[in-house]
Formats: sequence, C-alpha cells, structure tokens
Amino acid sequence: MNFLSLDERLNDALIEDLGRGDITTDAIIRSLGSKQDKATARVIGKESLVLAGWPILVRVFRVLGQIEEEPRFGEGDCVAKDQVIGIIRGEPATLLKGERVGLNILQRMCGIASETREFVGRVSHTRAKILDTRKTTPLWRDLEKYAVRVGGGSSHRHGLDDGILIKENHSAVAGGIAKAIRACRESASHLHRIEVEVRNLEELKEGLAAGADIVLLDNMPAEQVRQAVKIVDGRCQIEVSGGIRLENVASYAEAGADFISLGALTHSYRARDISILFD
Amino acid sequence: MNFLSLDERLNDALIEDLGRGDITTDAIIRSLGSKQDKATARVIGKESLVLAGWPILVRVFRVLGQIEEEPRFGEGDCVAKDQVIGIIRGEPATLLKGERVGLNILQRMCGIASETREFVGRVSHTRAKILDTRKTTPLWRDLEKYAVRVGGGSSHRHGLDDGILIKENHSAVAGGIAKAIRACRESASHLHRIEVEVRNLEELKEGLAAGADIVLLDNMPAEQVRQAVKIVDGRCQIEVSGGIRLENVASYAEAGADFISLGALTHSYRARDISILFD
Amino acid sequence: MNFLSLDERLNDALIEDLGRGDITTDAIIRSLGSKQDKATARVIGKESLVLAGWPILVRVFRVLGQIEEEPRFGEGDCVAKDQVIGIIRGEPATLLKGERVGLNILQRMCGIASETREFVGRVSHTRAKILDTRKTTPLWRDLEKYAVRVGGGSSHRHGLDDGILIKENHSAVAGGIAKAIRACRESASHLHRIEVEVRNLEELKEGLAAGADIVLLDNMPAEQVRQAVKIVDGRCQIEVSGGIRLENVASYAEAGADFISLGALTHSYRARDISILFD
Amino acid sequence: MNFLSLDERLNDALIEDLGRGDITTDAIIRSLGSKQDKATARVIGKESLVLAGWPILVRVFRVLGQIEEEPRFGEGDCVAKDQVIGIIRGEPATLLKGERVGLNILQRMCGIASETREFVGRVSHTRAKILDTRKTTPLWRDLEKYAVRVGGGSSHRHGLDDGILIKENHSAVAGGIAKAIRACRESASHLHRIEVEVRNLEELKEGLAAGADIVLLDNMPAEQVRQAVKIVDGRCQIEVSGGIRLENVASYAEAGADFISLGALTHSYRARDISILFD
Amino acid sequence: MNFLSLDERLNDALIEDLGRGDITTDAIIRSLGSKQDKATARVIGKESLVLAGWPILVRVFRVLGQIEEEPRFGEGDCVAKDQVIGIIRGEPATLLKGERVGLNILQRMCGIASETREFVGRVSHTRAKILDTRKTTPLWRDLEKYAVRVGGGSSHRHGLDDGILIKENHSAVAGGIAKAIRACRESASHLHRIEVEVRNLEELKEGLAAGADIVLLDNMPAEQVRQAVKIVDGRCQIEVSGGIRLENVASYAEAGADFISLGALTHSYRARDISILFD
Amino acid sequence: MNFLSLDERLNDALIEDLGRGDITTDAIIRSLGSKQDKATARVIGKESLVLAGWPILVRVFRVLGQIEEEPRFGEGDCVAKDQVIGIIRGEPATLLKGERVGLNILQRMCGIASETREFVGRVSHTRAKILDTRKTTPLWRDLEKYAVRVGGGSSHRHGLDDGILIKENHSAVAGGIAKAIRACRESASHLHRIEVEVRNLEELKEGLAAGADIVLLDNMPAEQVRQAVKIVDGRCQIEVSGGIRLENVASYAEAGADFISLGALTHSYRARDISILFD
Repeated sequence: MNFLSLDERLNDALIEDLGRGDITTDAIIRSLGSKQDKATARVIGKESLVLAGWPILVRVFRVLGQIEEEPRFGEGDCVAKDQVIGIIRGEPATLLKGERVGLNILQRMCGIASETREFVGRVSHTRAKILDTRKTTPLWRDLEKYAVRVGGGSSHRHGLDDGILIKENHSAVAGGIAKAIRACRESASHLHRIEVEVRNLEELKEGLAAGADIVLLDNMPAEQVRQAVKIVDGRCQIEVSGGIRLENVASYAEAGADFISLGALTHSYRARDISILFD
Repeated sequence: MNFLSLDERLNDALIEDLGRGDITTDAIIRSLGSKQDKATARVIGKESLVLAGWPILVRVFRVLGQIEEEPRFGEGDCVAKDQVIGIIRGEPATLLKGERVGLNILQRMCGIASETREFVGRVSHTRAKILDTRKTTPLWRDLEKYAVRVGGGSSHRHGLDDGILIKENHSAVAGGIAKAIRACRESASHLHRIEVEVRNLEELKEGLAAGADIVLLDNMPAEQVRQAVKIVDGRCQIEVSGGIRLENVASYAEAGADFISLGALTHSYRARDISILFD
Repeated sequence: MNFLSLDERLNDALIEDLGRGDITTDAIIRSLGSKQDKATARVIGKESLVLAGWPILVRVFRVLGQIEEEPRFGEGDCVAKDQVIGIIRGEPATLLKGERVGLNILQRMCGIASETREFVGRVSHTRAKILDTRKTTPLWRDLEKYAVRVGGGSSHRHGLDDGILIKENHSAVAGGIAKAIRACRESASHLHRIEVEVRNLEELKEGLAAGADIVLLDNMPAEQVRQAVKIVDGRCQIEVSGGIRLENVASYAEAGADFISLGALTHSYRARDISILFD
Repeated sequence: MNFLSLDERLNDALIEDLGRGDITTDAIIRSLGSKQDKATARVIGKESLVLAGWPILVRVFRVLGQIEEEPRFGEGDCVAKDQVIGIIRGEPATLLKGERVGLNILQRMCGIASETREFVGRVSHTRAKILDTRKTTPLWRDLEKYAVRVGGGSSHRHGLDDGILIKENHSAVAGGIAKAIRACRESASHLHRIEVEVRNLEELKEGLAAGADIVLLDNMPAEQVRQAVKIVDGRCQIEVSGGIRLENVASYAEAGADFISLGALTHSYRARDISILFD
Repeated sequence: MNFLSLDERLNDALIEDLGRGDITTDAIIRSLGSKQDKATARVIGKESLVLAGWPILVRVFRVLGQIEEEPRFGEGDCVAKDQVIGIIRGEPATLLKGERVGLNILQRMCGIASETREFVGRVSHTRAKILDTRKTTPLWRDLEKYAVRVGGGSSHRHGLDDGILIKENHSAVAGGIAKAIRACRESASHLHRIEVEVRNLEELKEGLAAGADIVLLDNMPAEQVRQAVKIVDGRCQIEVSGGIRLENVASYAEAGADFISLGALTHSYRARDISILFD
Repeated sequence: MNFLSLDERLNDALIEDLGRGDITTDAIIRSLGSKQDKATARVIGKESLVLAGWPILVRVFRVLGQIEEEPRFGEGDCVAKDQVIGIIRGEPATLLKGERVGLNILQRMCGIASETREFVGRVSHTRAKILDTRKTTPLWRDLEKYAVRVGGGSSHRHGLDDGILIKENHSAVAGGIAKAIRACRESASHLHRIEVEVRNLEELKEGLAAGADIVLLDNMPAEQVRQAVKIVDGRCQIEVSGGIRLENVASYAEAGADFISLGALTHSYRARDISILFD
C-alpha cells in the first residue's frame, strides 16, 4: 500500500480526538508512577467479517508511539465471530489513546470489504467486474477504494482528472450527448478513452454513433440492459449502475454488463463490530 | 454553526476529487466558447429524510466559485420523497465540479439526522437524552455531531480532552475502578465531573462508593438497568450504551436512564439518496 | 511530557532565527575545513532558579542535529548560582545555531517555575492550590502551564473549550449572573461543572442561588474573601484572583480559598539568566 | 506594518485558546435567541503605559468576525491610568472569544514599548541608540522588535542570516578572534559589515587589528568602555551590552558607546495591565 | 485558467525573495512620509516574443497589494521589441516588491510560448501535434504546460497517475515489452489507453503484437519513422521524441508521426528579456 | 549543504509528478509478484558537464524509499560525455518513480554549474568575482545559487532582506540617487553596506558623493567601466551587470570591476542531457 499524505491524515484524526491530550488516560498513567508494564491488547471481531485495514490500524498506533503487532489474519481473509484478528503490544497510554481512532477506521474498512465480497460472490460465474464509485467519504477515498479491492472489487477512476465520464448533467450543459462526446474527443489526451452515461436506448444509440468508447447504462432494469448489450454488439464496453442490490446484481451480470458500479459499497456500508480488549 | 478548519477540509475534499482538474467538465465548457449561461440545479430528496447539512453543501460550492442558494427547507425539517430541498444557481463548471463532494457530505449528514430523529421519537415520553459517541468518521466529527443535534440528539464529549470517562480498559490499567476514579479525582480540573463505565452491578457499587459523578452501564439488558437505577437512587447520573436498537430503546429510557448513547448514529447510518439535476 | 505540535513550533522558532542560514557560523565552520571536533557546551545558571524546560532545550538542538545530553538536575530541582545545569555535546554548528532559541525558551520556563515555587511556598500550610490562568504567551501555553506545574502549581482550564467559566462580560451579555448560569446549565455537557465570576457578595449570593458549582471571587480583599467563605459554607468551591502578590497570597489562602489563580505567573515573570559556554 | 505570516499566527493563537469552541460564550449566545445586540467594549489601561499593538488587537478580532474600531490613541502615545485606549464594536461572541488572546498580545507589547521608552529617555542627551537583541519570545520576534521601535529604540539584526556578529563561542570554535574575523571576511557578502564581541581590552585590540567594522563590548563597566572608546579612536563603531540597567544606562551612553543593546527589553518586561469592559 | 494551489506557490515565491521584508524599499518609502503617489509601471518586451503569463504577473502583485492592470496584448499574441506589454498601477512598494518575482515567472513563460510557437509553425502543414513532456521545472509544471498550449502545443499527460506510458526502464523491469503491456492491461482502468516506448522496429512489432494503443518511437531518425508508419499501418497512434530540433522537426511530421514531444520546450528555453520601468 | 525546507519541496515536486500514484510502475511491479530484485541504475552524462546536484538527486529518491548511492564524481568535477556520474541501487519502484523529478533537478543544476564555470574561466587572470542575481527560478533559488558556487561563482544577496541595493526604480521613487542613499543610510542596520545602481557617469558621481559603499554600473560598455574605475579611484567597490556575455566578460574584468553579475546564469541556462539506465 502506498497512500499519499496518509500519515498526515491519521495524525489529524488523532488530533481531532485527542485535542490537547487524553485527560483520563494521563491521570491514570500518572497514578501508576514507575510501575507501568507494557499492555497487550487483543483486537477481536465481534461478528464475522472480511478483514481490511489492519496495516492502517497499526499506523494509527505508530503515530503515537512504539508498538509491536502480531496479525493473525491477512488482508482479505474471512474472520469468524469472536476470533482474535491480531494482537498489539505497547505502552498502555499508546494503546488507550489510539484505540478509538484506529477502530473507527478499521471497522469501516471491514464493513466495505465485507459487503464488496458479497457482491463479488454473486457475479463470480460471469465476467462482470464490481466497481466502486466516487461516492466515497470525503478525505478517505484512497482507503475506501483499497477496501473495495481487498473485497474483490475493482477501481473506477480515482477523481475527475484521471478519466473522462460524461454524466447526464454534462450532456445537458453541452447540448446533447453527441456534442459532449465531440467536445471531449477534441480536448482529450491521446491516452484516455471516453465514457458516456445514457438513460435509455435512444441515448445509447446516440452515444454509440458519436463514438463513445464505453457507455454507462444508468438505472435500467436488467432486461433493458440485455437489449442494450445486443444493440452495442461489441462496439464498446458497458457499465451499469443505479438500483442494483445483492438480490438483483446477478441478473445484471448475466445480462452481459462488463462493469457493475455500486455507490452503496462506500456510502452506506455497516461498520463491522470490532473491539480491543486489554489482557 | 462555527466549525474550525471546515473550509480547509472542504477544500481538501475537493482537491481529493478534482486532482489536477475536471477534464470532462473543462472539455465541455471549452466547447461552449462564450455562449455559456448560468445553470440552475435542483437538489432533490429521492426518499424522505430529515435535512442536515445544507449550509455545508453551499460552502462546498462557494470554495469553487460564486453561487446563489435558494433553500426550500431549514435544518431539521422533514423532506418528503421527490421534494426539492433547494436550488443552486451558478456557472455550470462550478456546479459540475462541486456536485459529487457536496452530495457525499449532504447525503451522509441527512442519514445521521434522519436516524437520530427516529431514536429521539421513541423516547420522547421520558426524560432520557439520546447522545452520540466518539465513533464518528475521522476528520468529520464536528459535522456528524452537529447532524445528531439537528436530529434532536445531544453531544457527549467532543474528544479525549474535554471530559473524563473511565472505560473498561482504563480500569484494567489502573488496577480497578476505584483506583481509576481516585487517580482521575486527583488530577482532574475543578471544572470536570468523572464518569466511569461499569459492566455489572458489582462494578456499579464500586463506582458509586468511589464517588463517580456519572456511571455508564455498558451492554446491560433494560431489566438490569432498572435495578441499577434503584441502587443508584439519585446519587449520580446514569448513561446506558451497547446493544441498543430502535426496537428496544424505549425500554432503556423507561428503565430510568438519564442518557442513552448510540455509536450506530455515526458509524453505520445509511446515506440518504439525494441528487442534483440541472434544468 | 506530551506536547502536540511542539516540534513543529520549535522548528518554526528556529526558522524565525535562522532565516536562510547562520552566515556567521557557516563562515567559521567552512574555514575549519575537515579539522572540526565535537564541541562541549555547559549550560550554566547565572542566578539561583527552579529548573523547568531542560527537555525542551534538548529538543531544540535535536531539530538541528545529533547531540548528547548530560543533565545535572531534574525538572523542578533548585539550581544555585553558577552551577552547571547540564552539558550538551555535538557539532559546533548545531550548538551555535540552536543556542539562542534554546535559551530563549529555557530562561522563560525557569522564570515561571521559579516564581510559581515562591507562591506555592507561601501557602503550603493551607489547602489552597495555586492555579495558572489563560494569560499565557500566545502559542506557548502548553509549555508555560507545564512550567507552572513543575513549580508546584496546578492547571486551570487549558482553553475556552474544556471548561465553563462565566466572566463579568458574559454575565453582562446574558442579562445577569443567574441567566448566564441557567444558559450554561442547559447546554453544558453532563461532564462539566459551572464556575462563575462574582465581584461582590451580592453577586456571590446570586451565583449560589442559581446553582454555581464554583465561584470566582474577583479582586476582593482577603477580608471580604473570609466573609464569602462563610456565606458559601461549603455549598460550592471558591477561587480567588486579582490583586494577589507574594506579600498577601497567604492571607487569601488562610481566608479559606480553595484556589488562587495568578495571571502574573505567565505574563510578567522575569526570565532567569542562563548562558551556554563552550569548553 | 507588514508582518509575514502574522494572520496565520494570530489564527493559531486563537485556536490555541478556542480549541473546539468557546462553550461558555456559545451557551450564552444561544440562550439569547434572536434578541442579540452589537456589543461595545472599552479597552482600558489600568496603569500608565506607552501604547503599542493596537492594530494587532484589531486583527485578532478580525480573524473572528467583523468589528469596528475607534482608537483614542496612536502607536507610541502615552496613555494615563484608567484612560480608554480605544473602543471595539461587534457581535458579543466575537468580542468575548477574541478578548483574552488580544489582550495577551497587547499587554506584552505595551510592556516592551513602555520599558524601551524609559531607557531611551535616559540617553537622549547623547548620540547612543538603544537596540534590541535576539532574546525575544520565540515566534513573536517581529512584534517585539516593532514594539521596541515604537518605544523609540532601534533594531539589531533580525536573525542569524541578515548580519554577521561573531560571539565569544564563535571565536572559541574558530581558534581566536582574528581567525574568526578572517573567516567571515572571506565568505561575507560585499553588502555586509563584520561585528565582533570582545570581553576585554586585549580582545578589543585584536579585533581592531583584524579589521572588525564594529566591536561589541560585553559586560564591561562604563569606565572600561570609556577606555575602549579612546583605544578605538573612531576606527570602528562600538556597541555595549550586558549588566546595563535603567540606573546605569546613561553612564554607558556618556562613555561614548554608539549602540546599547538590552536583552531585558524583550525577555523580562512586565505586561501592562489592560482590560476590556463591555458597556 | 484554473491552477490548484497557485496563489500559495506565488506567495511562497514572494517569501523566498522578500524574507523578513524588503529593507531597501521600506527605507525609501519611509523617507517619503505621506507624500507618496501611486506609481505607474510599464512592462516592456526588450525583444520580440509570444506573450504568456500576464495573468500570473498580475496575481503576483495582487498577493502583495491592490493594483490596476492595463494589458495591451492577449495571451498568445506576438509582441515586438520595445513594445509595452501592459501597464500596472499601484503603491510604489507593491510594485517594487513584486517586480522581480513577477518577471522571473513572466520571462520564463514567454520563453516557453515563443519557442513552442516556432516548432508549431514548422509542422503546421501536417497533422502532427507538438506535445510537451514531464521534463518541466519542479513545482511549476502547470504554468509551463499552460505556456506550451498558449504557444500552440498540446499537453501530454500531467503526471504519472493520469495515463499509462511504458518506458524503456519499465520494460526492463517487467522482462520485456510484451510482458509490460500485458501487466498494464490487467490493472488499467477501462478509461485508459496504453502507450509504449520502443527503440527500434523489432520492439515496435513486439509492441503492436502485444496490443499497444500508442507507440512512442524514441530517438529514431525521420527515415526510420517513415518505415515505422508503414509497419503500423493505422493500427495504433505514433508519437516521436528524442533528437528533434527546429531544423528537423518538419521531417518527422512529414514522415507521418501523430505526435512530436519535445523536452527542450520546458527544460532549456531561453527566458525572454522583459523589464519593468516606472514613469 | 543545509537547505531549509528542501525535503518539503522535493516531496511537493514528487507529488506534482506522482499525483495519486504511478499507475504504469504499479501495474508492472504488481505483475512481478514476489520475484522482484533490487535494481541498479547508472546515471549517465550524455554530454560533458560540471557536476552539481548529486546529493539532491539522492534526496529525491530517499523521499520515496531506501536506496544506496555510489557517486563516481564529486560536486564541481568535470564529467566527460557518456561517463557514469554515479550508481543508484534500490527497489525498482523507487527508482522508476523518482527518476524524472530527480533528473529534472540534476540536469538544471549541472546546466548552471557548467555555464558558470565557463564564465569564471574567462576572468581567472583578474581579481573580478562572478556573481549570481535574484533572476532565479521561483522556489529553487537556494539550489540555483548553490550550483553557481559549485561552478566557481559567488553569491550576491539571497533576498530583499539581507542587503541593500538601490535600483533605478527605487531612485525614481525616492526622487533621485542621493535621496535614496540618504533614506537607506538612516534606516539601515549598522551591519549593512549600501549599494546603488547607476546608469552613467553623472549618476556614478552622484552616488559617490552621497556616500555609496558599492556602485552597480548597469549596462555600460567595458570602456565606460574603465573610466568609472578611474573616477571611483578606490573610494568604493564596483559591480557591473547587463549585456555581458562569454565573449566580452574578460574585457569587463580587465577594466577593473570587482564583481560581475550575470542573470543568465540562472534564467537561461541549457539543462545538461543526463539519463538513468537500468542494468
């Protein structure tokens, strides 16, 4: 993993929680005088989950002090209820001060990886790829997209600057899908393809005619996707999105979509229940 | 509202999304030449929700350019499905570039406010207050605690530095609840009270005897809370937490708890579905 | 010690002094060519003082390069005139470039600790605690409050966010002491007590009646404090402040104040005379 | 005035004090609902002083909100006890939140200007100039040197990069005063003069022979300074420093020193007593 | 123009030059007392040039103070020797302090635009596009690529994250061109094409066979490029680079290259001679 | 070398190039799985040059990861065409990601040092010193002035704050050369000399009469410089600048100038051709 500015953000997250200092922990540590021992903390999954984010948890503690880690699982592994995910050893103050921020991140990342894994499982008999979107938590997109990949999904573009995707509002501004595609073709780097969002089969045909490299079928029922695949007939790639849930994802994949993108993977996951217990 | 460093974080969130620039929007705007009009965008709730975060949405756009806002609802108002929450007017480029980040924040805040409102409704016949926790999204605690208040909840401490709460791991390090309370009493500012987490009625009695100002009953069934209230008999305040859901929250309130704190309000809400449509 | 952002501030303080570089030292070091030895510098108290800030002095040098330290005294120890406080060894350039900034901090911290120690000594036969205030040097409050504690004093709140203290101007805005207390009670965290400043015995009674947890008697003569203590009769705690000097501090403590807060400890101390001499 | 990064430092100083927000003020303002009026605050000198720093006080408040200022005195003016220095008008919250930080700065700057003025007055019958030193409060050197100038003093170099001053420890490292001067002459910009610190008349002669442009006589009695002036006989300029107090400063000036530098102006001033009262 | 963080970099560039303040200008302005007039400065091209960067020059001055601008030419216009490019009016101090930094930027940008224009002119009878490279001045890539576009060139990728270009060293690490292309195809976003650098016709064939979308012919004579164009026969796009100068650029374009990229446009331009004169 | 904030700027330069990550390199490294070896890269001069900046190249790579360096030449050494300047060993990803930024800096610094060396060689039979100017690339002045010194030149002032130089526009504002000198004399530190730019012999005489310590003869032919030297007759130092090229620099030195300053050294050098090849 190689996340730009991550340590800085973890540091800011710790400052958000610590403010001028942890007055409860400091009072207790002071009362112990010199008789402090190292503490050993078990990180425990209170429900089954797909692990993602252990190295981030470790970095949170390392911003605060020296610790030793003993992971029991790898990224992407399934952890059963009440299993020990790993062990952290260090000064009690370090563990007590970093615990909440570390868990706040780990619980969310495991939530994303676990839910992605479920979607990926439902389409594994097809060639469709599960994609994330830009509907990520502001300032944590890199960790969330990483958790999607750990869960078996793939990454859509990382921002507005590394790929061209013409959405409904862009076409509205441009004066139509064809005009929007033409405008992008003119300015685009020779290294970029052009994807366009279409809402119905008319727009699909317009996009194809204007030379789109990929079409995004928005909010179409699976049956309509099947028709679209026929119309496209291999001339471009197909992404679907909108209204897709665990129950119906397979039908979209079976309809022939190349990519299925899901906002809910990163905007409405349930954080997995994980706690840290001192021995 | 008065959030320290908020504009800086919104700016960073925009940079996270924009990177070196929005290549799709820039291509389309360039193709329009000088014939650009102002755009009008309707912000629409695609499901019913409690509104929280409109002023933040507005600030996101204002980091990018000049816009005019026309809110149709106030913070805390209920918005029905398909109603227009408000209107934003400005350069198309400003609206297109800020849309995703703005919605990423607004959808999450409305999720929190909406779910808080439900919990508050269930206990409104008692004197119990619904509290948030420190289980917030890193770097966005202020917005999330604000959304809880908009939903009718109250704020627990904002960080580790503005209140004393002795948790299970603190007592373990200190060598017991009584020792932990004593250590905190010695160091504490004369302006602070001391709260201690207890897991059973033995610990409750130990905490009371050691002079706790507030006890936090962790993961107790409502029936046991009722017993605890009797034991305490007004000598300190009582907070409950752990295992509390919409279905059982009233029973805890009716058992006599002063405060009910809920991690799920900020760690596992479902983002409300909101979209922005250009006229 | 655990000061947030301290290294950053020390770095900024060094940049303030070094600017684009120490042209005198650089010229001299360059003239020595390869025949440079490590330098040994004695830090000497030119007058008697209470030591506070040695670890900060060491950190200043460590921002610049590798050094070894050999402290001769601990924080809070009394150092007699002309005694060696400690020894620093390192590259001559490191010592020459960090000397002034390091001393600027150490001399001030020893000034604060020394003057606090005198006040604490005058009230040691009573239960009164000597407190600092928010009248600290901007950007160095943590170091100054630390120096007060090294000198034997205690810390009042660290900022406007971690405690409630209703001052004269707050009451004026609120429309009176009782209204101000009521407003704070409504918003206050359950973890916070409420302190109110009163200027005379009428206001004291108003504050008591409104349920203040602590009263701050401002600018009262010791005799009046004695009367106040009788009126309060144990119903709340008492802090005194204003017009208190070394000569009269004991009379306030003997009058029954719980806390005596002194702005002068941090706004008008005399820096202790300390120098650094190379062997 | 033109201070680099000043607004940033004032902002940081406010954050140091405000932390996550002023809970007392916020509670009171909230209780007022919509019936808030603008507040008018008088800034009052509780003792006589030389004014320095009014524009900085104003900037502190302006970081927080809109205010109007009505100064009654100019920078460098003498203000008598209990006179109103000026008036600030604005939202009560703005005034209450900025008051302490603003006064913390203003009181210190008036302390410096007032004490400088006294020294300047004692030597006004001679051509000696009163200079400050680098013994300033870290991170506030620009404001403190400004306050010295407001009090009538002049500025020595602003840091280690804009002038050459060979101190005792530099000469020790270089292997003597003459070698140190030679080393600096070789590297120095053609735009810089060279000053050297000497501890006795032998060293003075060595410095003169090596071509020093200015000598700094360190810790010499006034009588010895008189001898030094004779020895120098106009061949270079003379600065004195060390052991100089209000009582003896005139004797140094009369002995013929060109410059008298005083560390105490910026390291051990007494903050002037100033308060802010709401009408 | 829309450059992220540009004002921050201009501010840092001014601080690099101003340090603690412009002592020459400040001395002169102080001597004028209140009799200061606004100054009018003419920005004059001392040689013919293609204008690029006027808005940046204006922003440099605006970081320092209020100015009025009166441009005489637009971006991309040709300016003859000794013509006035534009007029700036403002406080003399603002103009004097910003002049050097402003010119340092403007002179370089005009150098880039002027030299790009020459290359573009040489190939205007072909469909070849002149491209920039990543051989830009660190921290100023956006301005330099903008100047290339002003001169008539196009932008290659902006960094390592928005396009895939397999260079010689990548192929060496991957174990050959084909393996490198396959590795990229597997990880690549569906929005990206793949370009590969080849050094001879063998490698060209290997790249084509492996499915490269674009080939970069490195350091080939124009004659060999012509052969490559035949081999490719429309199956992918062709970029050439290396050893291309004004004298031979047309032969590359005529040989059939789609893109000609030139490092020298941004690493070895000659700054155009421009000065600022006060009336 | 000791450059303030250099690592921060190198880090920013890498972020400018890397953005969210190097997608080409990451794809290739991922495809290698665990069978990655260390890479060895030769840094090769493709033309003869004076080496400057090797330690900076090394620091660029060290921001990204651990590397070993094996320099074959020292700073200031002449490197012949096709010689290996040095070797870098490390993870392939580290070398691939840092290569472009490192070369962008090294190529420019070698350009400056090489061109400075030529100028220095032309005047080595005289006592004239070659000086740089403030016409440096914004944000990289320290590296560029260092490269000038490596090439054998000397440094003029580093910014507007560490020396006084009255330019033509300053005199215009002040109302003449004599007034400008007088204004500066009044405000100047006792550690600073005063230099004034003059355009002809009249102005030279005015500057001399007003007590300038150094005169800068701007844009004069060598013959006129010779006359000026006679007029000055040792009363101040002489710098020349403007219109000086390799071909005529000796004539200026022989005319008696003490300093020859050259903007082109830092604004119009040609980057030397250097490449990095993996074994």
